[in-house]
Amino acid sequence: MLQIALREGHGSLPIHRQIADQIRYQIEHGEVEHGAMLPSSRDLARELGVARGTVVLAYEELCAAGVCESHVGRGTRVKRTARREERPVETRGTGCPVRRLLDTPDEPVFIDPRELSLLPSIADIEHLPITQLRRGFDRVLRRTAHLKFFTESAGDPMLRRQICEHILPERGIEAHPDEVLVIPGTQYGAVLIALTQAKERRNIHFGTPGYLDIARNFARFGFDLHDHPVDAGGILLTTSDLGKNDILYVMPEHHFPQCVTLSDARRAEIVHAVEQRDLLVIEDDYDSEFYYDRRPRPALKASNARDGVIYLGTFSKTLFNSLRLGYVVAEPPLVREMATLHWSLSRGTSGVLQRWVAELLDGGIIAAHTRRMRTVYRRKRDRITALLRREFPHWRFDPPRGGLQFFLDLGSAGHASEVIAICRAQKLRVALPSNYVMNGKAEQQFLVLGFGSAALSQIESALLEVKRALHA
Amino acid sequence: MLQIALREGHGSLPIHRQIADQIRYQIEHGEVEHGAMLPSSRDLARELGVARGTVVLAYEELCAAGVCESHVGRGTRVKRTARREERPVETRGTGCPVRRLLDTPDEPVFIDPRELSLLPSIADIEHLPITQLRRGFDRVLRRTAHLKFFTESAGDPMLRRQICEHILPERGIEAHPDEVLVIPGTQYGAVLIALTQAKERRNIHFGTPGYLDIARNFARFGFDLHDHPVDAGGILLTTSDLGKNDILYVMPEHHFPQCVTLSDARRAEIVHAVEQRDLLVIEDDYDSEFYYDRRPRPALKASNARDGVIYLGTFSKTLFNSLRLGYVVAEPPLVREMATLHWSLSRGTSGVLQRWVAELLDGGIIAAHTRRMRTVYRRKRDRITALLRREFPHWRFDPPRGGLQFFLDLGSAGHASEVIAICRAQKLRVALPSNYVMNGKAEQQFLVLGFGSAALSQIESALLEVKRALHA
Repeated sequence: MLQIALREGHGSLPIHRQIADQIRYQIEHGEVEHGAMLPSSRDLARELGVARGTVVLAYEELCAAGVCESHVGRGTRVKRTARREERPVETRGTGCPVRRLLDTPDEPVFIDPRELSLLPSIADIEHLPITQLRRGFDRVLRRTAHLKFFTESAGDPMLRRQICEHILPERGIEAHPDEVLVIPGTQYGAVLIALTQAKERRNIHFGTPGYLDIARNFARFGFDLHDHPVDAGGILLTTSDLGKNDILYVMPEHHFPQCVTLSDARRAEIVHAVEQRDLLVIEDDYDSEFYYDRRPRPALKASNARDGVIYLGTFSKTLFNSLRLGYVVAEPPLVREMATLHWSLSRGTSGVLQRWVAELLDGGIIAAHTRRMRTVYRRKRDRITALLRREFPHWRFDPPRGGLQFFLDLGSAGHASEVIAICRAQKLRVALPSNYVMNGKAEQQFLVLGFGSAALSQIESALLEVKRALHA
Repeated sequence: MLQIALREGHGSLPIHRQIADQIRYQIEHGEVEHGAMLPSSRDLARELGVARGTVVLAYEELCAAGVCESHVGRGTRVKRTARREERPVETRGTGCPVRRLLDTPDEPVFIDPRELSLLPSIADIEHLPITQLRRGFDRVLRRTAHLKFFTESAGDPMLRRQICEHILPERGIEAHPDEVLVIPGTQYGAVLIALTQAKERRNIHFGTPGYLDIARNFARFGFDLHDHPVDAGGILLTTSDLGKNDILYVMPEHHFPQCVTLSDARRAEIVHAVEQRDLLVIEDDYDSEFYYDRRPRPALKASNARDGVIYLGTFSKTLFNSLRLGYVVAEPPLVREMATLHWSLSRGTSGVLQRWVAELLDGGIIAAHTRRMRTVYRRKRDRITALLRREFPHWRFDPPRGGLQFFLDLGSAGHASEVIAICRAQKLRVALPSNYVMNGKAEQQFLVLGFGSAALSQIESALLEVKRALHA
């Protein structure tokens, strides 16, 4: 069954290209099978409310691209030849499987304003303290001297100081501004780390289901990827899995998207591996500000392994995602090396944005907003937990102890597909489970349900609609 | 003669490390010779006004790093072994010399607030329309819906439309928003182009003296670099220099830093090469908004070669440099490919910045500011031209017909070094000529004098001080 959502207006792709792109996406993601017949152009045109010629154009484009084939009188079908060959699974010395991610197709991201987003890790913006944000920006503009030159490559000194004084102590980290590099987000931080480490290291380990886009940036620059299972104690790996000089990517406080916390025993093993094997740890602490039951434990960056840990923090959740501002905490020589690279790649991070956030930190605006949102998110979590337990008693989950999403075990892959198809039909934007496992590995029976950005009442109605459709 | 400027306060490196770093930089840039004696720790400490132990620490650090060597009673000297080996100059089929740039050391950038910047390509910020900038931002914050989600990977649809409607027509370019990608600056744009083109292309051509940092990003991702001379008609190359599928990086309107315009004949040859040899042209149109004598000619992107031209524009000069916002105009499939890559590398460009600039474009704020600054800069250019002709009659130059810097031929490399040393001593920050030529090629007799950011009166006094010091 094709799922096509069209968007109109200036700035959109032509309709026929939108149709072709979305069909192609679904084929490449295995949502439409090889060899399957596409609906007749007449039927699809009627369903989408477009001219038949538009669908014909889309089909022609798919045929020209070699994705589909068409024969007069027999309609258009998806070609049988699998487009994506399975890359062979290599093995290396440790016997650990090595895979690469770059054959997973990336797609440009469009936003459909008619959809309700249940994507994970997206912050609420309805409660943003707009007046204070505005006043902070006014202060920045009135003191224009810092706009004069480029920003320093490592970041605005005022912001780096504020991060050391106001943010890191919350995570148990004592750091000097020389240890802080401001970046336009964690994802870009991974590029800087990969490029600076590629000389000496070639393997990166991480847990799945997990956040794979960091690993993807390492794969892009030549690293081999090693995925490990995740259970209730976080990423499950033993020291023997780790080679000398390997990199380990972890989210110790809230492993995404399951929101499990690294157990003390595993934490100790990682600290040990840093000391014994020159393991480099990337600690992605993307949302530990939002905890609902207990204060988070200190970061790994606050442990004995400190010098071997690169810490990544972000303002995407404490302010809003499209801000694009984050920071790295690392040893000063590495900060300098990454700062230089950042300067060469993109001339540093926006100075005006940095100074704005520094003003907001200085005025306590971000701290107050974070406290408030902790309460708002906790209430959403509790209400959605109650609704899910009542309306979907067969779905298994632990209420997340932090973060902005539920991780739901739906019991079977078939049921998960059904629920996702219903969400699509109802214009609920949900993340595909295949995003979180290597190379679209089998079908997944879980669903990640983000509750950060949509209003509680909207989420509740949406879930009730999903239930109705399931029983229809 | 060592040139050391220390900075103090929170966020600075320790003093001994600042000293060591700056000495090392000067050694690596050939400003302090191999084998040279460093001043005694006592003398340098007195000169810098720091404790002697601090200088001793710095010297120890340099020795530990293998840059210097020290013998009791004989002081510390720079090691004789050249640190940077000359890479062999390779040749390829066309007989064109191939060099690589990555062995040129990059340095993180620090800002010394006590210095007066005469760096090129830096916009004035004293005349920014602060009230309108603030009102524009207020409007953005009051309409928060667009902050809700990530930005689209290709950029804010409103900003892309405004660029098509308000900016590109000034350059003769008709484009649809699908052809526009918003990026955090031109430098990062080069990364996106290099990574998307690396599959099919491997050579990039450019003119020197010129802006080499774009080429440097291509070298980083495996491209071979081909430099060509620049004369009064712009980059000097013939079609036979270009291989099939090569890339040519040009600044047709104002080649930086000389501010020469590409001649009609060479322009025609480039258009021809696009059509005949699948040449890909990168047109960096970084400051053509600032013209003083005649309107600029239409962009190459407005020529018959349009499809083979990737156009780069920026808000660094029409607003301010530390904004970090620019745009690419290219064919829609390439825009989509680069947008996807941009999303993967860094999750797109800051949404709030994009919407802010869109509001400023929509309100005509940027257009009005640009018109005003054209007048301000023209006046600065005229006054500095008069002063230079009067006070430095032996320096040869054409008054720049646009842009934010003078390109001065000082007659001999020795004289240029002398002037640069005087600027340093007087805390005038000037760009080193070696920035603009390949691999620090010989000494250069030119000086690039930026007049964008410093006030006219400051520049005039500074130049008179330089003259006094020259005759002292």
